Amino acid sequence: MALPLPVTGAWQQGDPVGGRQFVTFPVERPFALDRGTTLDRVTVAYETWGRLAPDASNAILICHAWTGDSHVSGTPGHAQTSPGWWDGVIGSGGFIDTDRWYVVCANVLGGCQGSTGPASPHPDDGQPYGSRFPVITIRDMVRAQARLTAHLGIAAWQSVIGGSMGGMQVLEWAIMYPDLIRSIVPIATCTQATAQQIAWGAIGRRAIRLDPRWRGGDYYDAEPGDGPGEGLAIARMVAQVTFRSDNVFTERFGRAFADGAIFDEHLDLSQRFEVEAYLDHHGDRLIRRFDTNSYLIIGKAMDLHDVGRGRGGLRPAMRRIAVPTLTMGIWSDMLYPTYQQHQIRDLLIEGGTECDYVEVDSPHGHDAFLLDLDQVGSPIQKFLERLPLGSS
Amino acid sequence: MALPLPVTGAWQQGDPVGGRQFVTFPVERPFALDRGTTLDRVTVAYETWGRLAPDASNAILICHAWTGDSHVSGTPGHAQTSPGWWDGVIGSGGFIDTDRWYVVCANVLGGCQGSTGPASPHPDDGQPYGSRFPVITIRDMVRAQARLTAHLGIAAWQSVIGGSMGGMQVLEWAIMYPDLIRSIVPIATCTQATAQQIAWGAIGRRAIRLDPRWRGGDYYDAEPGDGPGEGLAIARMVAQVTFRSDNVFTERFGRAFADGAIFDEHLDLSQRFEVEAYLDHHGDRLIRRFDTNSYLIIGKAMDLHDVGRGRGGLRPAMRRIAVPTLTMGIWSDMLYPTYQQHQIRDLLIEGGTECDYVEVDSPHGHDAFLLDLDQVGSPIQKFLERLPLGSS
Repeated sequence: MALPLPVTGAWQQGDPVGGRQFVTFPVERPFALDRGTTLDRVTVAYETWGRLAPDASNAILICHAWTGDSHVSGTPGHAQTSPGWWDGVIGSGGFIDTDRWYVVCANVLGGCQGSTGPASPHPDDGQPYGSRFPVITIRDMVRAQARLTAHLGIAAWQSVIGGSMGGMQVLEWAIMYPDLIRSIVPIATCTQATAQQIAWGAIGRRAIRLDPRWRGGDYYDAEPGDGPGEGLAIARMVAQVTFRSDNVFTERFGRAFADGAIFDEHLDLSQRFEVEAYLDHHGDRLIRRFDTNSYLIIGKAMDLHDVGRGRGGLRPAMRRIAVPTLTMGIWSDMLYPTYQQHQIRDLLIEGGTECDYVEVDSPHGHDAFLLDLDQVGSPIQKFLERLPLGSS
Repeated sequence: MALPLPVTGAWQQGDPVGGRQFVTFPVERPFALDRGTTLDRVTVAYETWGRLAPDASNAILICHAWTGDSHVSGTPGHAQTSPGWWDGVIGSGGFIDTDRWYVVCANVLGGCQGSTGPASPHPDDGQPYGSRFPVITIRDMVRAQARLTAHLGIAAWQSVIGGSMGGMQVLEWAIMYPDLIRSIVPIATCTQATAQQIAWGAIGRRAIRLDPRWRGGDYYDAEPGDGPGEGLAIARMVAQVTFRSDNVFTERFGRAFADGAIFDEHLDLSQRFEVEAYLDHHGDRLIRRFDTNSYLIIGKAMDLHDVGRGRGGLRPAMRRIAVPTLTMGIWSDMLYPTYQQHQIRDLLIEGGTECDYVEVDSPHGHDAFLLDLDQVGSPIQKFLERLPLGSS
């Protein structure tokens, strides 16, 4: 059932078609990782919208989630089969108006949409990293974006904005580079991954390990369609259930059978419900556009996410955030429940930092930040309008 | 990593050691299944506690959940490595006092703890059913118990009690055999499986299919330890997360690393968190005591659970329930949320049937019905005391 997986990492043959650009950090400055090792020749793929003001005061950085990419706005582009994943929020005349703002989004380190990840060639031998790719952290992703910031000549971002794993990067940005930011918008995210969040990830990891085609991560010489797609699809199915909600699943799928099956003497274990066909579809669709090793590496980075690590704990870490903050939660989010957004707000206010909290009134669960765009975009627009421009 | 799986179905070599007894329905009365097919020579394994009153008025039937069995009370017995799964509720002097009540629990049809299931020998050739075992329903499980009822000489159960899938059987009992019951106690269950409940099951199913050792269900000739344990373990991990709760996972595991790992340059993808080790442990433990095909067959029965099927829908089906009912929910249950117990209560009361609702105040999630035994047992005890004895 596995669909063709671009196991050869075709997306790595970078060119600036479709607006995507690339920067590779020079060899003489190896990229230092959080864990004490280094990566050579790190490439960051990014896209930009709008024009940078002469004083570089209008720059906004968007951070993407687990399987996201740099294509946050606009039409399908190079290696992009869909419009921008936040096209309803960002664009000319949009909530984040690219006629006014210079918007940047980079593919995360460890990803598979242009930035260096497990499918990229290892500088030593030109072969894909595969199992040699190191465990990275959210802080490493942010550090790569900080290098991109310097490359773009931006002294400070007017705002750094993102949901889910994007929100983890946003919090780390504010803690790691307080001088490079003027405000942050963390959405449907957390200060540290909880045991339950880690548990969901663990299931997917074990499913990928079970897939005989994963081969410990060194599968890039496989024929198209013979990559570890089944394991990835199962991992995605777990995620997809936690991204949505009980009530919307009931409304949308109920108990309907898929594939025209009926309850009779011919029904066997292969019978699927509509919700099952939907999950299969989402799993299979991810196989076509995402690399299994990237899924593992990025998932591990999320599990390791803890703003308190090495900083004396959560409270002292959050006290380092000193810029105006808008945090948003979704009441139906089972993966990043609203108590996690309340915690962000409470810790910031306790530390004397201005923080607004907006709750998205959507039944769609975690993915509401990608679906209910008016509710997400409008408060961001107002927040940006209120900020003093260019002061830092 | 797979642990020895008793793939040869050793548990099928039935004998009454440890209190377990067996009844095999005669060949001349084949067991008719809900879907229109039949099963020959169906065996039901059961255990009993206490003494049946001369007028058979003190009989209580307990229905078990997904991976439960007939060993509901007492010390470890034949093929039982643990004490009874409701030992704190049922026993001499317990909430369901076996000095007073005659308590019966049967392994469900499709199971692997003595009753006929996929690991049982097919009557035609003596080889395990494997992939030949038919899809069954909760109603089929109940029909097997109804035959056992006649075998035991019980005219009517004073109460039929069960949680989770046990509660599904309880509801079907009240609808299918109103004359054979005097009261019911459905706990943490539902009138029909929701799309989200089906979704959790679908993930496990696909993981088992991915396991090359499952072999389409015909793996019983495998060497011990070479059965489809990995797929089953992954399926169980999904279930285990939904059986518990976010807050208790956080309290119990937090973000602690397992296996003595630390965050340094040696950390790789094999690093596990404590919660991950816990899930691995629960998955691996199930492999040792449960058959993968039974897991699939019983899971499918739960997904197909819908008291409204073939009865004109939910409301008319629930109107058939006319006996006093105690339903219980758990506020932290993410798998069978309390709104599902409210629905049972509301539909019964709307139909003029007496129904009490008790909410278990436990943070433990769905499994609270197996953990917070005082809170579960005490209302059952009071409910049983209030019932007129032997009237039907």
